Amino acid sequence: MLPETRFTALPPHVRPAAHSVTAPQGFRAAGVAAGIKGSNRLDLGILQSDYPCVSATLLTRNTAAAAPVQITRSVCDGSRLRGVVVNSGNANACSGAAGLRDADRMRLLTSHALGLPDTEVAVCSTGVIGAALPMPKVERGIEHAAAKIAADGGDHFAAAIRTTDRTAKHGALRLALGGGEVRLGFAAKGAGMISPNLATMLCFVTCDADVPASDWGAMVVDAVAGSFNRISVDGQESTNDAVIAFANGASRVRPDDAGLSVLGETLRAALLALAVAIVADGEGATRVVRLSVSGAREAAEAEAVARAIGNSPLVKAAFYGEDPNWGRVVQAIGQTLARAGDDSALTADIDYGPVRVLSGGVPTVASEEALQTLRDVMAQPEIELIVELHRGRAGATLFFSDLTHQYVTFNAEYTT
Amino acid sequence: MLPETRFTALPPHVRPAAHSVTAPQGFRAAGVAAGIKGSNRLDLGILQSDYPCVSATLLTRNTAAAAPVQITRSVCDGSRLRGVVVNSGNANACSGAAGLRDADRMRLLTSHALGLPDTEVAVCSTGVIGAALPMPKVERGIEHAAAKIAADGGDHFAAAIRTTDRTAKHGALRLALGGGEVRLGFAAKGAGMISPNLATMLCFVTCDADVPASDWGAMVVDAVAGSFNRISVDGQESTNDAVIAFANGASRVRPDDAGLSVLGETLRAALLALAVAIVADGEGATRVVRLSVSGAREAAEAEAVARAIGNSPLVKAAFYGEDPNWGRVVQAIGQTLARAGDDSALTADIDYGPVRVLSGGVPTVASEEALQTLRDVMAQPEIELIVELHRGRAGATLFFSDLTHQYVTFNAEYTT
Repeated sequence: MLPETRFTALPPHVRPAAHSVTAPQGFRAAGVAAGIKGSNRLDLGILQSDYPCVSATLLTRNTAAAAPVQITRSVCDGSRLRGVVVNSGNANACSGAAGLRDADRMRLLTSHALGLPDTEVAVCSTGVIGAALPMPKVERGIEHAAAKIAADGGDHFAAAIRTTDRTAKHGALRLALGGGEVRLGFAAKGAGMISPNLATMLCFVTCDADVPASDWGAMVVDAVAGSFNRISVDGQESTNDAVIAFANGASRVRPDDAGLSVLGETLRAALLALAVAIVADGEGATRVVRLSVSGAREAAEAEAVARAIGNSPLVKAAFYGEDPNWGRVVQAIGQTLARAGDDSALTADIDYGPVRVLSGGVPTVASEEALQTLRDVMAQPEIELIVELHRGRAGATLFFSDLTHQYVTFNAEYTT
Repeated sequence: MLPETRFTALPPHVRPAAHSVTAPQGFRAAGVAAGIKGSNRLDLGILQSDYPCVSATLLTRNTAAAAPVQITRSVCDGSRLRGVVVNSGNANACSGAAGLRDADRMRLLTSHALGLPDTEVAVCSTGVIGAALPMPKVERGIEHAAAKIAADGGDHFAAAIRTTDRTAKHGALRLALGGGEVRLGFAAKGAGMISPNLATMLCFVTCDADVPASDWGAMVVDAVAGSFNRISVDGQESTNDAVIAFANGASRVRPDDAGLSVLGETLRAALLALAVAIVADGEGATRVVRLSVSGAREAAEAEAVARAIGNSPLVKAAFYGEDPNWGRVVQAIGQTLARAGDDSALTADIDYGPVRVLSGGVPTVASEEALQTLRDVMAQPEIELIVELHRGRAGATLFFSDLTHQYVTFNAEYTT
């Protein structure tokens, strides 16, 4: 089942399905314990389509991108992928020329084992950075996974890509379009960080609709823009982040315009549910805040203000303390507008849920009833924060987590 | 005594003096308990020069600047100030038109009590934001302070501007120039944040040298650029930050070029000592890191990389955990260069103190001896982090603190 929050709702008439990424027809997968993590935990997954696919591939923009990202970007055809090999427990990042060779070898061995053209198999890694991949284990793992690959293997695949996620982040959906039923499958991992690695966000999507490549690409880009690109745990973009979405047409249902629209809407909603689940599970988080900034002069200004608020350790710590500390929100806004070379006085409105705390830059006089509502709002695990700047008409939304003792404990743990 | 660290050293031949901001001739000050903070703690200070001054006034760029900052900026002559009134316990920020009236009234009452032109008296506040100033208490406090003002009142003034600082940040220096002895006095407060306010950095400097206005202004701007503008506790710029530096010529020593140079050097060193003390005392910090970024293509790139590293909660938490987690440094660099629209591969060197951990983007193979040195380095309260980007010749330095459990505790405390 896909995770649910008060901020996310699937479109009506969408029903759940089993086996996550292998729910759609013509996909098979496996997850095995290759020994990279140790303790017999699943740590290597393979996913493939039995048919050629259209695909959309979105990779981290971090210039210190890990070896598998560099290989996938430079060698594979990101719009025609039909398989992927993923290991957890080792990110193969900052690993130099040897790391590139290892990533390439993972891809070649997997494409060989699956009988696919090697440019159609991507490679992803997540876990510890700066350590060499234990290639003998990886190679045996690939062999083992390729032998086990099955039409109900999606859940094992989903388990194999997890690192420190406390909650599962996968699921599948069925939706009836004009021409018949199509299915979507999802397996994601998130930002739980523990010794000694970078948090990495990985998400794999499968679909058996028969969708033109350009429509599929646009749909995925749009859905990622509205989900994974709208979250912040700590403002850091990993060296390994990747979203790869495959559509293989195996249902033989070719959606019409209305069908494409429903499919796109479902994809958006599902990725948003996964993205919010990643925030909620991020680094000791106890709550998720949906921040809506409006009234900015332009989109970039709204975005900058939203990021400044959502990445402010002061604002984040206040949410942990159930403290509607709008002063810190004001401070983040003021600092951002000043950096933009603007010195107009601040006249923002700020609401926590239904309670307005700042009106035109001045604190509201709160009734006892409003204060009680405010206390109730701040105690919730999901909180709405609304900022109206009164400067223009542009807006931005951002989901962020609170800053907790647990975050510090996780990230201060001795690792080297 | 000015605070000392391994990163800061005063020029030779500079000797300490007593009474902080009133050490230079012709300055008087007082600090009183006006009842703004309660518990009889000092919370209102007045500082004045007996003679006309040249002054340099640097105020926060935050567009949500507090009322006293707005008043000082718009009404006072920042280059001819000879007095200031400061209260702690209430920041008079986000206080609307009433706040502006209150700040202006503080300034007018003080200038009246001291017999100074009202454009020559600045006003500063620090403390809780969004609460109205208790003006009857403030007014009685100003009266009281003006009556008590004295040539040995500098330490009381320094105490009255503190909020949650754990350590004192004031002192005075004597230096012999060609024409005779001049003195410098300092009183600063820092970034200790506790319920429910913004951290504010305030610093007042006095000097009895006879310095031309333009030289004094340039000297102060240069010293602030190399000190307060090179520190980061949590990347947040307060609504109330201010540096005001007065030079009244009362020593009748007019420095020659060599003297100006020594005076500027001393000012730089003293402000750096205060700035590093602010970082060390910041929000539960247990250590201070001096980050040197070099090899950037341009100054703005070096600055952006330094800020990304110094403001990364992952990097900061790793220092708390005594973990030389260069992976997080690499990740912050890569993210910053990517945002700058650059995707060249990363080939940085990274050193923690004398130990190189990354060379050309690839981890070094460390000897047991190097690992032991690294453990020793990471256990120190003051740590050197050196990043060479190998992209060009520009550099930047930044002092930052670690991210600790105490930071979260401070900032999560319920306040509203």
